[in-house]
Amino acid sequence: MKEIDQIKVPENATIRKLMKLMKNTGFGGKRLARACLIYEKMIKEPDCKKFFGLAGAMVPAGMRQIIRDWIAKGYIDVLVTTGANLTHDLIEALGHHHFQGEHQVSDELLNKKGIDRIYDVYMENKVYEAMEDFIQKLEFDPNMSVKEFIWHLGAQLNDENSIMRTASKLKVPIFCPGFTDSGLGVQLALNKKIKLDHFKDLREIIDIAWTAKKAGLVIIGGGVPKNHIMQALQFTPNNASYAIQITTDIPSPGGLSGAELREGISWGKINPKADFVEVHCDATIALPIIAGYLG
Amino acid sequence: MKEIDQIKVPENATIRKLMKLMKNTGFGGKRLARACLIYEKMIKEPDCKKFFGLAGAMVPAGMRQIIRDWIAKGYIDVLVTTGANLTHDLIEALGHHHFQGEHQVSDELLNKKGIDRIYDVYMENKVYEAMEDFIQKLEFDPNMSVKEFIWHLGAQLNDENSIMRTASKLKVPIFCPGFTDSGLGVQLALNKKIKLDHFKDLREIIDIAWTAKKAGLVIIGGGVPKNHIMQALQFTPNNASYAIQITTDIPSPGGLSGAELREGISWGKINPKADFVEVHCDATIALPIIAGYLG
Amino acid sequence: MKEIDQIKVPENATIRKLMKLMKNTGFGGKRLARACLIYEKMIKEPDCKKFFGLAGAMVPAGMRQIIRDWIAKGYIDVLVTTGANLTHDLIEALGHHHFQGEHQVSDELLNKKGIDRIYDVYMENKVYEAMEDFIQKLEFDPNMSVKEFIWHLGAQLNDENSIMRTASKLKVPIFCPGFTDSGLGVQLALNKKIKLDHFKDLREIIDIAWTAKKAGLVIIGGGVPKNHIMQALQFTPNNASYAIQITTDIPSPGGLSGAELREGISWGKINPKADFVEVHCDATIALPIIAGYLG
Amino acid sequence: MKEIDQIKVPENATIRKLMKLMKNTGFGGKRLARACLIYEKMIKEPDCKKFFGLAGAMVPAGMRQIIRDWIAKGYIDVLVTTGANLTHDLIEALGHHHFQGEHQVSDELLNKKGIDRIYDVYMENKVYEAMEDFIQKLEFDPNMSVKEFIWHLGAQLNDENSIMRTASKLKVPIFCPGFTDSGLGVQLALNKKIKLDHFKDLREIIDIAWTAKKAGLVIIGGGVPKNHIMQALQFTPNNASYAIQITTDIPSPGGLSGAELREGISWGKINPKADFVEVHCDATIALPIIAGYLG
Repeated sequence: MKEIDQIKVPENATIRKLMKLMKNTGFGGKRLARACLIYEKMIKEPDCKKFFGLAGAMVPAGMRQIIRDWIAKGYIDVLVTTGANLTHDLIEALGHHHFQGEHQVSDELLNKKGIDRIYDVYMENKVYEAMEDFIQKLEFDPNMSVKEFIWHLGAQLNDENSIMRTASKLKVPIFCPGFTDSGLGVQLALNKKIKLDHFKDLREIIDIAWTAKKAGLVIIGGGVPKNHIMQALQFTPNNASYAIQITTDIPSPGGLSGAELREGISWGKINPKADFVEVHCDATIALPIIAGYLG
Repeated sequence: MKEIDQIKVPENATIRKLMKLMKNTGFGGKRLARACLIYEKMIKEPDCKKFFGLAGAMVPAGMRQIIRDWIAKGYIDVLVTTGANLTHDLIEALGHHHFQGEHQVSDELLNKKGIDRIYDVYMENKVYEAMEDFIQKLEFDPNMSVKEFIWHLGAQLNDENSIMRTASKLKVPIFCPGFTDSGLGVQLALNKKIKLDHFKDLREIIDIAWTAKKAGLVIIGGGVPKNHIMQALQFTPNNASYAIQITTDIPSPGGLSGAELREGISWGKINPKADFVEVHCDATIALPIIAGYLG
Repeated sequence: MKEIDQIKVPENATIRKLMKLMKNTGFGGKRLARACLIYEKMIKEPDCKKFFGLAGAMVPAGMRQIIRDWIAKGYIDVLVTTGANLTHDLIEALGHHHFQGEHQVSDELLNKKGIDRIYDVYMENKVYEAMEDFIQKLEFDPNMSVKEFIWHLGAQLNDENSIMRTASKLKVPIFCPGFTDSGLGVQLALNKKIKLDHFKDLREIIDIAWTAKKAGLVIIGGGVPKNHIMQALQFTPNNASYAIQITTDIPSPGGLSGAELREGISWGKINPKADFVEVHCDATIALPIIAGYLG
Repeated sequence: MKEIDQIKVPENATIRKLMKLMKNTGFGGKRLARACLIYEKMIKEPDCKKFFGLAGAMVPAGMRQIIRDWIAKGYIDVLVTTGANLTHDLIEALGHHHFQGEHQVSDELLNKKGIDRIYDVYMENKVYEAMEDFIQKLEFDPNMSVKEFIWHLGAQLNDENSIMRTASKLKVPIFCPGFTDSGLGVQLALNKKIKLDHFKDLREIIDIAWTAKKAGLVIIGGGVPKNHIMQALQFTPNNASYAIQITTDIPSPGGLSGAELREGISWGKINPKADFVEVHCDATIALPIIAGYLG
C-alpha cells in the first residue's frame, strides 16, 4: 500500500507541480491529478483516437480558448458537443461577448434590460439579431451532414479563436446530434431551407470508432455528448482504453451524466483493463487546471 | 406568515392526503407538494398546453406506464424526450424487459453474461437483435420528420402500454431532437436508408409554442428535453405560466439541467408572474407520488 | 433476475400500496421502498436495538411530530441528534413556531425584520428571549451527563408533542455529542453554571451498543449523529444487522455524511450480512413517506 | 458589465497566475478564484480574526500539512474542527499513516485484513492500539476545557508537522464541540477519568467573537465546525466581514452544511456588506489550490 502524502505546496508552484503532489493524496484531489495523467497518456499514444464530449455552458463561462487550443494541438480528435456551445462560439466569433454577472439577481429586471442569464454569466439578447444577420447571408447545401455544415460555417468565420473555424481548418470532426436544440438551430429553421442529414453523422462517428486502433474518452458534463461517444464505441473491436469524466452529476438517480465509467464496461463500451477516472468537479475549475498541466 | 405544521401522517394515508399535509412543511417536502398542486392547476386549465420534458433512464426504471397513462389522460400535450427512452419503450413493446439488479457488481462479469447495466437496472444485450429484426421489416418515407417517424413506428406496435403507440394513436406529438443519439437511431443508421427532417420538427414545436394560449412546463431531469422546450417558448407571445422541475442536478456549475427555473424569466421563456417550483428529487420517487396525487 | 414492473399507481392509492409498487422499480424509488421494508423489519424484531441519527433542520421543517411519535411507538430506541433539533423542539414547546418562507429573498431585509432564515423556513429572532427566560428559571445539577440534562429539561415541558418530553417520559436516551453547538447551548453557557459530563454519555452509548443483541441503524442526513452511532458499534460483539440512510450528500468527496453504508463493513460497524440501503433523498420527502408506510 | 475572458493558460503557469486568469471567467472557476482573493484580503488585514471551520476527512486525505502551515503562518486564528481530524492528526504524529486505496473494493475483505476505509483512503485498524498506548500514559486535569486538553496533548507530540502541536505551541485555539464523537474521545472515555468542561470552550469562542474588531470565515465542508463559528458570531458587535465556503453540499434540503452564506445575513452572523463566496468543490481540490495561491 502506498502512503498518502501530507502535501506541502511550495510558493510559486506551477500547476504541473501541484498535480504531481496531489496524485499522492486522496478523494477528488487525487482523482483530478489522475485525470491529468490519463489525458497525458492518451496524447502521447500516437494510435489513440481521443473522443471529447463537451456539455454544459462552457463557452459562456470562458472555456472556449482551451477547447480551441486542444483541437489545434491535436489533443482532441473528435469533438461531440451541444448546439449551445456552437451557438456561443458563433456569438463570440461575430464580435459579441459574454459578461460576468451574479446569480442572486432579479431575473425580471434582467429581462427588461435585454439580458439573458446563465447562472452568473450574462449575455445580451441582441446577439440573436447579429446571428440572424449572419445566417441570412449564409449559403449552403441543405442536405449536408451536421458535421459538414459546421465545417462549412466555421470556414466563414474570421476569428481564429473560434472552435468551429479551427476544427474546420484542421478537419477535426465536430458532431452535434442535438443540433436543432440550439439558438443557431432556431435561426436556421426560421430563416433557411435546411434539412441536414443527421444519420450521415451517426454513420461517420460509428465508422471512426470502428476503425480506431485505440480509443480514449474525455467526458465533460455528460449529457448527449457523453452518450453519443459511448454508443459509438459499443460494438467496436477496440473499445475505450482510457477515459476521464468531469461532472457534478451523481450516479444514484440512474441518469447517464452521473453514471460511473465502469458501468460502460458492462455495455462493452469501455475495456475492463482501461485506465479511467471520474472527477466530481465543476468543469470550469478542472479544465483550466488540466490545460495548465498539459501545457 | 403561515406557520409550519408539525405533520402527523395518519395510518393508511393516501398519497393525496400526504401531499396536502406536506404542503404545510418546509424544504423538499413542501416543494414536492407544490409541484403536485401546480401540475393539477395546469391540467384543470383547458387552454394550457402542457409541455413535458423527459430525460433520464425513466423507462428502464419502471416509469413507462405513468408517462403512457398521462398521455392517454391528456396530462401531456407535447412530449420531448431522449432517444434512449424511446428505444427502451420499443424494447418493452417487443416483449423484452428490464430487470432489478445491483450497482455494486462486477461490470466485467455482467459484460461476459451479456447484461448491460444502468445503475441498478439490467438489460439483456440480446434486445438489440430483436430491435434489429423489427427495424429491418419497417417501411417508411426516409424524409419524414422525427415526430412523424415516431408516430409511424408507434402505429406498428402491438402493445397498448407503449408510449409511442399511445402518442401515435392520440396524435400527441413526441419530439426527440437528439434522436440519432440512441440505440434505435444506431439500428436505423446501420440497416436503413433514412434521413428524417429534424428542422421540420423544430419548426413544428416552435409553432405549437407560438400559438399556445397558455403554456405549462413539466421538466424531468433536464438535458436536451428541458432546453428544447425552453427555447421553443423564448420568443412566443405567451411564455410559461406554470412550471415544475424535478432534478438532482444543481445550479452552481452553470449547466441547464440544474438551472433554477427563474433563470428562464431573464430569457423570456417563463413569465415573471408564473407559478413554478423546483424539486431536488430522484424522479423515480417524485413521478409515482405525483401520479398518485393526480389520480 | 426479477423483472422491473412498469408501475401503474391506482387512484386513491395509499402510501403503503405505493411503496409495495415501487419496490419493483429501479433507482431511488426502489431504494426508498426498500428503506421502508428494512425499517419495518427492525421494528418487528423484538431484540433489535434501533439507533436513530437525526441531522438537518428537521424540526424547523415540520418533522417534529413524526420523530416524537416514533419514540412513543418504540420505533426509536436511541436517538442521537444535533443541538439545533433540540433547540427547535424547545422553541415549539415554549409556544413559538416556525414559518413558511422563501429562499429567494433579501436576507438583509429579513434581518431588519428580526427573522432568521433556514432555506425556505423562517423563525422570529425573539424566540431567543423566550428561551432565555425558560433557561434562567431552570434548576439542575451542573455535572449531569448531556442525556440526563435533556431528560431533566424534557420533564419540565408542558407540551406532549415535544421530542425531549416524550423521550424523558419513556426513558428513551437522547445523545447529543455536539450539544454546546446550539442556541440552547449558548443560552446555558451565558446564563448558568453548567458543565455536563459528555464522557458519561459516550460511555453510556458504547455500553448500549455493546449489550445490544441486534442493532439497526436509521441515519437521517449524516453528520455527527451518524458518526456517533457508527463509532459506538465499532468494537461491539454484534454490529449492525440493519441500516438505512437518507441523505443528499455524496460519497466521492470522502465525508462521512455521504459515505456509502458498506464502508462501515470495513470498520466492523456494519455486518457483512446486514440488510441495508441508502436513499439519495431530501429527508422532508422521505420521512413522511416512511411514516405513512409504517403507520 | 465586465466581459468574460476566454482564458488561455500559459505553459508552466503557476497556480497564482491561473487564479488571476480564472477570476475573469464564470461559474465555479470564478468563484474559486474569488475565494483565493477574499482569503488573501483577510490575511492582509491586521485586525481581522480568521475563524477556520474544518470538517471532512481532511487529514486522511493528505491536507494536514496545509492546515498546520496555515496555523504557523497566522492564516488561521481560531480553528474549529471535528474530533476525527484531531484523531487522525494524532495517528500521524504517532508515526502511523494513511494509504491510497480504491472505493470499488470488497469491504468485507478489507475488514478481514484489518483495514478501515474512508472512501479511497485506507487506515490500518492497529492504529487504535498505538493510540491507546499513548492515551494510557497521558496525564492531565480531567476538568480542563476541550481546548486546554488539545493544547496539553499537542505539547506531548514530537511531530512538528502536527496540527495540535503547532496550535499548542503558538497558542492558536482549537475548538472541538463534538470531541467525544471521535476515536480519540472513545479511547479517553474507556481508559481515563475525564470530564472536560465543554461550556468553558463555548464561552471562550463567544468571547473571541465578541471582542474581534473584524471577523473572517473560512468554512471547509460545513457540519458542526461551520455552525459553531456562525453561532459564535450571532450576537456580536462585529459580525463577519469576509467569508468563503468550500463544500459539495447543496442548499435545497435545508441543512446548514449546504446553506448559502447569505442566509447568515438574516441571522446577523454575516454582515450585509461582507465580501463572501461559496465554491461547490471537493476540498481536496480547493485547499491545495488556495495554498498555492496564498504561498
